[in-house]
Amino acid sequence: MACDFYQLATPGVQGLHPYQPGKPVEELERELGISNSIKLASNENPMGPSPVAMAAVQAALGESCRYPDASGYKLKQALSERYGISPDTITLGNGSNDVLELIGRAFIVPGDEVIYSQHAFVVYMLVAQSTGATSVVVPAREWGHDLDAMAAAITDKTRIIFLANPNNPTGTWFSGQALQAFMAKVPDDVVVVLDEAYLEYVTEADYLSGVQLQAGFPNLVVTRTFSKAFGLAALRIGYAVANPAITDLLNRVRQPFNVNIPALEAATAVLGDTNYLQRSVELNRTGMVQLEQGLTQLGVNWIPSVGNFISVDCGRDAAPVYAELLQEGVIVRPVANYQMPQHLRVTIGLPEENSRFLTAFASVLQRL
Amino acid sequence: MACDFYQLATPGVQGLHPYQPGKPVEELERELGISNSIKLASNENPMGPSPVAMAAVQAALGESCRYPDASGYKLKQALSERYGISPDTITLGNGSNDVLELIGRAFIVPGDEVIYSQHAFVVYMLVAQSTGATSVVVPAREWGHDLDAMAAAITDKTRIIFLANPNNPTGTWFSGQALQAFMAKVPDDVVVVLDEAYLEYVTEADYLSGVQLQAGFPNLVVTRTFSKAFGLAALRIGYAVANPAITDLLNRVRQPFNVNIPALEAATAVLGDTNYLQRSVELNRTGMVQLEQGLTQLGVNWIPSVGNFISVDCGRDAAPVYAELLQEGVIVRPVANYQMPQHLRVTIGLPEENSRFLTAFASVLQRL
Repeated sequence: MACDFYQLATPGVQGLHPYQPGKPVEELERELGISNSIKLASNENPMGPSPVAMAAVQAALGESCRYPDASGYKLKQALSERYGISPDTITLGNGSNDVLELIGRAFIVPGDEVIYSQHAFVVYMLVAQSTGATSVVVPAREWGHDLDAMAAAITDKTRIIFLANPNNPTGTWFSGQALQAFMAKVPDDVVVVLDEAYLEYVTEADYLSGVQLQAGFPNLVVTRTFSKAFGLAALRIGYAVANPAITDLLNRVRQPFNVNIPALEAATAVLGDTNYLQRSVELNRTGMVQLEQGLTQLGVNWIPSVGNFISVDCGRDAAPVYAELLQEGVIVRPVANYQMPQHLRVTIGLPEENSRFLTAFASVLQRL
Repeated sequence: MACDFYQLATPGVQGLHPYQPGKPVEELERELGISNSIKLASNENPMGPSPVAMAAVQAALGESCRYPDASGYKLKQALSERYGISPDTITLGNGSNDVLELIGRAFIVPGDEVIYSQHAFVVYMLVAQSTGATSVVVPAREWGHDLDAMAAAITDKTRIIFLANPNNPTGTWFSGQALQAFMAKVPDDVVVVLDEAYLEYVTEADYLSGVQLQAGFPNLVVTRTFSKAFGLAALRIGYAVANPAITDLLNRVRQPFNVNIPALEAATAVLGDTNYLQRSVELNRTGMVQLEQGLTQLGVNWIPSVGNFISVDCGRDAAPVYAELLQEGVIVRPVANYQMPQHLRVTIGLPEENSRFLTAFASVLQRL
C-alpha cells in the first residue's frame, strides 16, 4: 500500500490552504464564452506598465542566459538614492510576499506566536501557519487595526507582529503618531513587520512611513512592493527595509537569485520614471472619487479607503452578487475569507472600467 | 541596549551562510579596471537566449501590470505535451532552487535527517540547515554518489534524500539501473529528490530520467530547470515532477505568484524551439571535446563530466590559480566549499571562450 504523503508533511503544512488569487480574465472568458470582460479583482495598476521600465527589460533580454546579480547592486543603489535608505538595510524579494515569508522563516519556530489583525492580508496567516506558529488574530476596530488591543495581545511567546498601513482589503490606515505610540509599547525583541504595499497612494497628512521611525525602533521592518503604484505585478518584485542585522538574517534565508533580471531592470528604471508614479496616483484619486460618487447614488455603503481599491457593502451575502457580476463580465474580489461576507473588494480601474462596474453593480443589485 | 537579533533567529538560520554565486563580469571589470573578461563560472548557456523565447517575453510586456497566472496553466500544458507528464504532477518554481526549498519546507521539521552526497550541490545543505534538519553527508565514491552507502545511511529519522544526476560540480552520473536498485532499498515514506538540472546534456545510453520510474516509486520527486540547456537562467524558472499528493503539498507552500510572466512565457515558448535545444547540446558536446583535448595537451587531469562544465584538477591548491585567472580576465568557479580544494569548475563556453581559458590556464600554471 502506498504511503500517505499528507501524513509526512509538517503539521503546519497539513492544515494549509493555498492563497486564492483573483480570477483571471482568460479563465472567465473561457468559462462563459464571452469576451471584453474586465478585472478589478487584484489591486493591479490599470494604467499599463511604465514604457521606461519596459524599455529597460527589453534592453536586458540578450542577457537572459546569465544569472541575475544576486546582490541586486544597481536596484539597491537606486532605492538608496530615492528613499535615503542604506543599501545594507534592503532585502529584495520576489514580490513583497517573498520578503514576508523570509521574515517568518528567519524568526519563527513551531510554537511561537504571531499577531495580526482581523481582516488583515491572508499572507500573514499563511506565513504563520506554514512555519508552525500560532496565529493570534486581534479583532478589528471600525474595520482597521486596533493597535491598543494588538499591543495588549503580546505575550512572551510573541515573535512577530504584522501590521499593514494601509490595510488590504479594508483600505483603512493609521497615523504616524499611532504607529509611534504602538512601537513604544512593543518589547524590542518582538519583530514588527509593517506592510506598506499601498504607501504611494496615501495622501493623508498624518500618514508616516515606518522607515521614518526605524532609527528609534530597530525591531521595525518595513515591506514594500513594485506591484501596485509602480505597475510591475507581473514581474514580482518587492523589498524589506530593516536594520542591518535583520537584513543579514533575511538574506541568509533568501534564495540567491530570487528576483529575476526583468524585475531588477524594470524596478530600477521605474524608480526614475516619476511621471509614471504621479499619473498612477492621480488616476487612482479621480477613480476613487468616481466610485464613491457612483456608490452614493446607488445608496450603497463602503469602507473609506486610502488604497487603490474599495470594499463595498452589498447589504446582503456578497457571493451571489459576485457571481452575477461575473455574468456581466466584471470580476471583483469576494472577501468572505477575510470575515467580510457582505463586502466585495473593487480595484480602482480606468474611468470606463469604473463606470462599467457601477452600471453592472446597479443592475445586479436590482435584479437580485 | 539594543536587542541582538541574531539571538532571535531560528537555530538553523543562526548557523547559515548564504550561497556564494559566481563572480559577475561587471564586478571583476570594475575591480580590475579591465574589459573583455569572460565568465565560465555559473554553468550558464553560452549561446545567448532562444529568439523564440525572447519574442514571447516581448509580446507579453504590455501585461506587466497584471499578476501572473498563479496556476501556470499554459506552461504546465506545454510540459505535459512535451514530456508526457500530467499537469497535476507539476510544481513550478522560481528556478529549481525554489522547488528544492519547497520540498524541504513541506516535509522537514527540526530534528529530521536529510541525506546527500559529499561534493553535492550546496543548496541541499542550505535547505536542510534553514529548516533545522540534520545533514547526513555520505562520502563520495570516485567523485560521484555512493548509492549503496547512501541507502545504508537511512534511519527512521530520514525524511529526504537528495540525489543529483548528473551531479554538480563533479559532472558524475549514475545509470537508470543503479537508480532503480537504489529506490528499491528506500522505504516508501522517505522522499527521494532527484535533481536533473543537467539532464538535457546527457547522451549516455544507460542514463534514465527519474520520471520514467515514478509509476513504481511514488516517493521519487524529480526537479528540473530552464536555466541550463534551455538558456533562461536570468528568468528563474524550474519545476518538480511528483505524484499528485506531493504536488498538492508543494503547492501549499509555494508562493502563489512565485514565477513571473516573462519566465512563464519564455519557458512555454522555448519548449517549442527544439532547434535551440539541439544547438545548445551540440555546442556543449564540441566544447567539452575541445576542453578535454586542451587539458590533455597541458597534462592536466579532470573529472569526466556529462554536464555543461568540467572540474579540472590543478594538482595544487586551486585558490591562487583562480586568482591569477581573474587577472587574465577569466572567471571560473572555485569549489573548495565542495571539499574540492584542488579543483576549479569550468563551464563549457563558446569555442573562443574555451580557447581563451586554455591559454590563460596554461600561462597561469606555468608562472605559479
